[in-house]
Amino acid sequence: MDPALASLATHYQAMPPVAALQLRIDGYDGECLQLHAPLSANVNDKGCAFGGSLASLMTLAGWGLVSLKATQAGRHADVFIADTQLRYRRPLYADLQAGARLAEGASWETFLTRLLERGRASVRIAAWVALPDGTVAAECIGRFVAISKG
Amino acid sequence: MDPALASLATHYQAMPPVAALQLRIDGYDGECLQLHAPLSANVNDKGCAFGGSLASLMTLAGWGLVSLKATQAGRHADVFIADTQLRYRRPLYADLQAGARLAEGASWETFLTRLLERGRASVRIAAWVALPDGTVAAECIGRFVAISKG
Repeated sequence: MDPALASLATHYQAMPPVAALQLRIDGYDGECLQLHAPLSANVNDKGCAFGGSLASLMTLAGWGLVSLKATQAGRHADVFIADTQLRYRRPLYADLQAGARLAEGASWETFLTRLLERGRASVRIAAWVALPDGTVAAECIGRFVAISKG
Repeated sequence: MDPALASLATHYQAMPPVAALQLRIDGYDGECLQLHAPLSANVNDKGCAFGGSLASLMTLAGWGLVSLKATQAGRHADVFIADTQLRYRRPLYADLQAGARLAEGASWETFLTRLLERGRASVRIAAWVALPDGTVAAECIGRFVAISKG
């Protein structure tokens, strides 16, 4: 595994509420970060995926993507979620497959340049959890803020 | 404990991702449902509360409130989160205290009447997690859908 991805995986597992989700990194192609979590650890009273777990997994996919992009550009920063709009489309009765990528209209270049120049920048990320047929179970647009360390 | 609250507490604990939050019901005055969860089970890489846990706790407070209101009115329904807008205001370095109540402009009477007449209704709920000084760490407005059982 790529060292930046391995570091992100370690980072995830160090957080107790994240370890409880039993998530794993499922892939990263430089633009889209994918996460997986088993339904068994994230099931609700109706036998489908718990809304809070869907929100957590999408938040973690977005947070991980922004952290990776900052690290790979040599910017050491703390990344926080600032706000998010979530929509739950259909119940999910299978394992959770989440993805995150840059939201439409947002720019990594603008984000990374501002982070370098001002020590603080924000970026909008689109994240989703897919149904087994490839349609959307839940989706969100989140704004993440990065603040340079030191 | 009130039987409806005791049933809700059992319901919460039966969901693995909710049990992982270590939440407990902290109070219910008929309008506001309050939940508590320890920071230790919900801490992130920066030593403050994980955004996904804040989202989960607010979702569960809203979901619990809608479930309680439906049950107490004699409507047996499955309750789902439909959409939510979350805002993270300040980092929280203490245990998580969440609350949920009816959102401004929403009405329990309208919700319960529609649920009885149509077998399906939605209601908007305001939820928050407080900082120790009483100000807001995170807040959201969520729309919950109830569907009559049987």
